[in-house]
Amino acid sequence: MIKQNVSMKKFLKFVFISLAIGLLFYSCEHPHHKAKYVFYFIGDGMGQVQINAAEAYLAAIHDEKGFQHFAFTQFPAAGYASTYADNRFITGSAAAGTALACGKKTNINRISMNPDATESYKTIAEKCKEIGMKVGILSSVSIDHATPAVFYAHQASRSNYFEIGLDLANSSFDFFGGGGFKSPEGEVDNVFINAIDEAKKNGFNYVNSVEDIQALNKNSGRVIAVSNLLEESGAMRYALDLNETNLQLSDFTAKAIELLEGEEGFFIMVEGGKIDWACHANDAASTIHETIEFSNAIDVAIEFFKAHPEETLIVVTADHETGGMALGNGPMKYETNLAVLQHQIISSQAFVEVIRDFRVNLTGDMELDFKHMMEIMDWYFGLGNPDKIPLTEKEIATIKKSFLTSLYTSEGAEPDHAYHDEEPLANLLNKMMSDKAGIGWTTFSHTGVNVPVYAIGVGAEYFSVNIDNTDIPIFMEKIIIHGAH
Amino acid sequence: MIKQNVSMKKFLKFVFISLAIGLLFYSCEHPHHKAKYVFYFIGDGMGQVQINAAEAYLAAIHDEKGFQHFAFTQFPAAGYASTYADNRFITGSAAAGTALACGKKTNINRISMNPDATESYKTIAEKCKEIGMKVGILSSVSIDHATPAVFYAHQASRSNYFEIGLDLANSSFDFFGGGGFKSPEGEVDNVFINAIDEAKKNGFNYVNSVEDIQALNKNSGRVIAVSNLLEESGAMRYALDLNETNLQLSDFTAKAIELLEGEEGFFIMVEGGKIDWACHANDAASTIHETIEFSNAIDVAIEFFKAHPEETLIVVTADHETGGMALGNGPMKYETNLAVLQHQIISSQAFVEVIRDFRVNLTGDMELDFKHMMEIMDWYFGLGNPDKIPLTEKEIATIKKSFLTSLYTSEGAEPDHAYHDEEPLANLLNKMMSDKAGIGWTTFSHTGVNVPVYAIGVGAEYFSVNIDNTDIPIFMEKIIIHGAH
Repeated sequence: MIKQNVSMKKFLKFVFISLAIGLLFYSCEHPHHKAKYVFYFIGDGMGQVQINAAEAYLAAIHDEKGFQHFAFTQFPAAGYASTYADNRFITGSAAAGTALACGKKTNINRISMNPDATESYKTIAEKCKEIGMKVGILSSVSIDHATPAVFYAHQASRSNYFEIGLDLANSSFDFFGGGGFKSPEGEVDNVFINAIDEAKKNGFNYVNSVEDIQALNKNSGRVIAVSNLLEESGAMRYALDLNETNLQLSDFTAKAIELLEGEEGFFIMVEGGKIDWACHANDAASTIHETIEFSNAIDVAIEFFKAHPEETLIVVTADHETGGMALGNGPMKYETNLAVLQHQIISSQAFVEVIRDFRVNLTGDMELDFKHMMEIMDWYFGLGNPDKIPLTEKEIATIKKSFLTSLYTSEGAEPDHAYHDEEPLANLLNKMMSDKAGIGWTTFSHTGVNVPVYAIGVGAEYFSVNIDNTDIPIFMEKIIIHGAH
Repeated sequence: MIKQNVSMKKFLKFVFISLAIGLLFYSCEHPHHKAKYVFYFIGDGMGQVQINAAEAYLAAIHDEKGFQHFAFTQFPAAGYASTYADNRFITGSAAAGTALACGKKTNINRISMNPDATESYKTIAEKCKEIGMKVGILSSVSIDHATPAVFYAHQASRSNYFEIGLDLANSSFDFFGGGGFKSPEGEVDNVFINAIDEAKKNGFNYVNSVEDIQALNKNSGRVIAVSNLLEESGAMRYALDLNETNLQLSDFTAKAIELLEGEEGFFIMVEGGKIDWACHANDAASTIHETIEFSNAIDVAIEFFKAHPEETLIVVTADHETGGMALGNGPMKYETNLAVLQHQIISSQAFVEVIRDFRVNLTGDMELDFKHMMEIMDWYFGLGNPDKIPLTEKEIATIKKSFLTSLYTSEGAEPDHAYHDEEPLANLLNKMMSDKAGIGWTTFSHTGVNVPVYAIGVGAEYFSVNIDNTDIPIFMEKIIIHGAH
């Protein structure tokens, strides 16, 4: 070792002192590092299996082993959140959303109110607004649906769509986007009112064409940007049913960032709402494509994060799992074949419309109609196509039986669950596609398993454990308002 | 602010220098903090749902909301591991175990060898032994079963039970415990050999009574400690079928710690092997009780951790999920009633034995036999008991039909899956109990969802992300041999 002379020793001593003092001052001045830009991504119905199914699908169609990972599943913090509601173990989107927005448990169907609906809970979005941050609320389902609503509305029931719409119109938030309004019309003091008109009166700039949405800029003021392709429910169409000229959830996310970025900071909540709907229908391909598009929206936030790594927090989670989805089923045992799902180019919900159109155009020649339906199923699902998904005679007979029951002997069965207009033939195809892919389902409802939590950025370390869903907004408030440790 | 005089300033300067130098030296001397005591808990078939089901069951029977958490789910690090095998997306215990033991992917059925079985992989347990640590391998199934085997054996097939037994006999490890040997007898060069005898010749102290196991101490040398209550398979009986006078997995874990603790440090692998078996049978109550007993074994390690927090690492994970288990099913929709499972006081596997005993003792009076069977089902499952699980007439008719098929018209169907001797009546009761509890299953096989990872202690932070199962032993090696950052 080189012998150090006295002046070198003094120099090193000086360096030590400087470093020590510097470090001490730094740690005194920066004990609480605050997040200025916060993204809260909520995949409705997105359990760990839904994420894994999408990642495994992407690997399968590219002939890779295992998973093609989403960027968000590689975040430096991963964890779990329990989801149970105050009055039911298996939660619903309203109670779970209230927990995720307010940090408090409540009963099924409440929108950011306490269990007996006598008191409003303040939401993390409202708290962010109070300290001057911009706030954006986005969803691929209607913007008055439970998950977006819990951030700005306070209602005894998620079904109070009109009242939720009025809460939106009266909110001080800056951006609403994605889906539209499910039921904006109602009556107040015997006067008919439209919540969209109220919002406009309150200064919101309401736009619902691709061009107008693309033209929005930082001078556009407060905005409600609604997809031009809405379903009757007010939801955006499934990602699988949109094309490159349509706006997807990721496009709305990019626009929200563009409009809200600034010195005030922002809080942006983005819901992937139709993952849940696809799972309610046990529609595997739509579940996967909704999850992929949700990940695309997260990727937009990750690009922003890369430019502002010291000031940004991204949290990705879910309100609950839907469907009891599994990457493995009885018929396939240890095998999976997720790549078959690439042949499905329509959501089950849209295929229900195809069936209904078909019903009103029946020729009366049953064999001819069935032949035509088989061609349609080849086109939309690859079913019966020898190069895509060949069918056995037994499978064709099963399909034919369902076709006859569905189209020749009834007008379709009554819906069994809330999110999916049932058509026996559409249900059969969902089951057939899942069976062939190696995917299983236990229910058309939600399940009670813990949901995943992924986080990156300021305070991400809070989320790498097993927490309750109520902890998430509490941690966020700490990180945004008081600063992460 | 108080004015500081010169001597105070000098003192503070001295304190700063001392602190700075001290910290610098500490960080130079302790950049790599090594784990001396390592626990590796592998719940076979234990996905996140299995853990949640057990935690929710404990809450339900105590009239609490949500979950009664296991200590290990509250560890400071939580994460995920992907499980796929080299040649199949849905893995098996041998390939998954090889990944967890060696940090390398392999094909289905390989025991710590490469995909084409031409090369052995070195296991983390062997590496620990090489550096002088004590090594213990424990399982609630036979100790030559795939998951324990991957830590000490190298075989082309998990079915080479005799050869695996010989690998055990020839290993330099210090403790084997829990289950016994599935198939220890075989032939080498035309000579009949018993692997247990070989192990004894090689210096292992083989004990298989409660008294002898309890009497083991640090002077007992190298030990094979086998439960006195084994099934024909060599596995320990289900936790649900044992009583307080029997040794459970947690007792074997405590004994392993007692024998292996010392200056050399230790590596102890504990497999909860029958979680998987219960899930293969879709037996919800046994799944939950095996998971609870697995958690009890982890609790023993946590007590050790508390006494050695600076030197201990505990990692809890699984090889794969089994059954596509869900906390939610079609019949119950949004409801669960996990507390009904407390009435089941026998594993389905043991109930199969009850049915077989019953079959050889039939009176020939079908109505009388059925009445007797209903009494048995009340006793073991609470089924038909108005204070426990009342049955509708339709349900009784379903049971009766299965009873007649199972006991009066056949000798029982052929097994549909490897781990469970099928009896239609036993299968029906599993389904009935799950249906009533609100639990769903998609398969009798494994599934491909990521498994949970929980960690506490030295280097735990490595495990709070989404990793591959091969990463776990690689991280462990780093933490044990090179030191955590």
